[in-house]
Amino acid sequence: MKIQQREKPQVAVDIVVFAIINNKLSILLIRRGTKPFKGYWALPGGMVLKNESLKKAAIRELKEETGIGDIYLEQLYTFGAPFRDPRGRIVSVSYFALISKKYKPVLKPTTDAVAAQWLGVKKLPRLAFDHKEIISYALKRLRWKLEYTNIASQLLSNYFTLSELQHVYEIILGKKLDKRNFRKKILSLDLIKPTRRKRKGVAYRPPQLWKFITNKHIVLDKRELVF
Amino acid sequence: MKIQQREKPQVAVDIVVFAIINNKLSILLIRRGTKPFKGYWALPGGMVLKNESLKKAAIRELKEETGIGDIYLEQLYTFGAPFRDPRGRIVSVSYFALISKKYKPVLKPTTDAVAAQWLGVKKLPRLAFDHKEIISYALKRLRWKLEYTNIASQLLSNYFTLSELQHVYEIILGKKLDKRNFRKKILSLDLIKPTRRKRKGVAYRPPQLWKFITNKHIVLDKRELVF
Repeated sequence: MKIQQREKPQVAVDIVVFAIINNKLSILLIRRGTKPFKGYWALPGGMVLKNESLKKAAIRELKEETGIGDIYLEQLYTFGAPFRDPRGRIVSVSYFALISKKYKPVLKPTTDAVAAQWLGVKKLPRLAFDHKEIISYALKRLRWKLEYTNIASQLLSNYFTLSELQHVYEIILGKKLDKRNFRKKILSLDLIKPTRRKRKGVAYRPPQLWKFITNKHIVLDKRELVF
Repeated sequence: MKIQQREKPQVAVDIVVFAIINNKLSILLIRRGTKPFKGYWALPGGMVLKNESLKKAAIRELKEETGIGDIYLEQLYTFGAPFRDPRGRIVSVSYFALISKKYKPVLKPTTDAVAAQWLGVKKLPRLAFDHKEIISYALKRLRWKLEYTNIASQLLSNYFTLSELQHVYEIILGKKLDKRNFRKKILSLDLIKPTRRKRKGVAYRPPQLWKFITNKHIVLDKRELVF
């Protein structure tokens, strides 16, 4: 390898935060206050600083540009196509989170962001850079996680009916599901278990309450192996 | 963010290639011919070149340092701790592969590597940089994949007995498994299905042959969603 062919790119982080807002799967975007793509919506993110770890950079940028702190970020994927940024080579390490139902953050953009807002994933405006591609990868990851982990538990109470669970799955998958089919499939995934409790006072035949099996952890890294 | 705090790291790729060699889970390592860590074993890898995508860099480095081409590399994780390389900030995007049973590559190190060799994961020598950490993450990923995908199909014929499958799982998990327990768990994962074929001419009661369910793809990205 010839030395002169090497390149010192900048390394950036971009953060994809999902939440359910008004029954819609939404994503946290900021409006850029600086060039390039000034005025465009984009993922919160920015350059990694000297002596700063990648994850710390992601936590800092998210806090600066949206006001959100204290959420668990998981590394998603690294995007490094040579011409993805007009300023020169910038490799972006993306991070990912799904905000729990209990957490209601106040958005407070500063630094490079002039606005921060939740936008529904189904109708996104034109975005800066390759952020549409990053979001589409993150959506895919979120949807797998419905199958392999208890990630949906973030959006439910500890005890829930199968209808409530189906509603969360429908919102994240972005489509209606057949009730019988959903029940069959969700049981085959071995993610939830029935409890002895029932939802009280709502119907003549109160529905059974279920809970997540705890070893099916939100973060695949932390999930226990079957064997 | 203050401009002067920014940093232009170099971006490198490192490649973790697993194979089963002599019934042992092994990893492809090279011996470094240059500083730093000259003479140490390390993962094949190197700097990303100008206008080169991350994946192309990984394919090129693997070919240059080990002679191996034409295998499917999947992005694993990006390691970017500030002091992981004594030369300055180098962020490494790691890639991952499991070599199929049918593929018998000839190792042919060039450029920065003075040797390339398969080493058993259970008894690795001291490695350069944070490569032990990268390998340990890759091992974890490989082991999850046994649960969520048909990755073990790379190491078996199209039709196999449950004992043959158990043997592959034991090698990758690095431990003996109880036969009854293994059968119960593997069936619960819904990865394989029975066929009408039997292994011929080996026993008084020839064992049944199984095959993988094809939608449980090796690459999680390409796996079909249940819903």
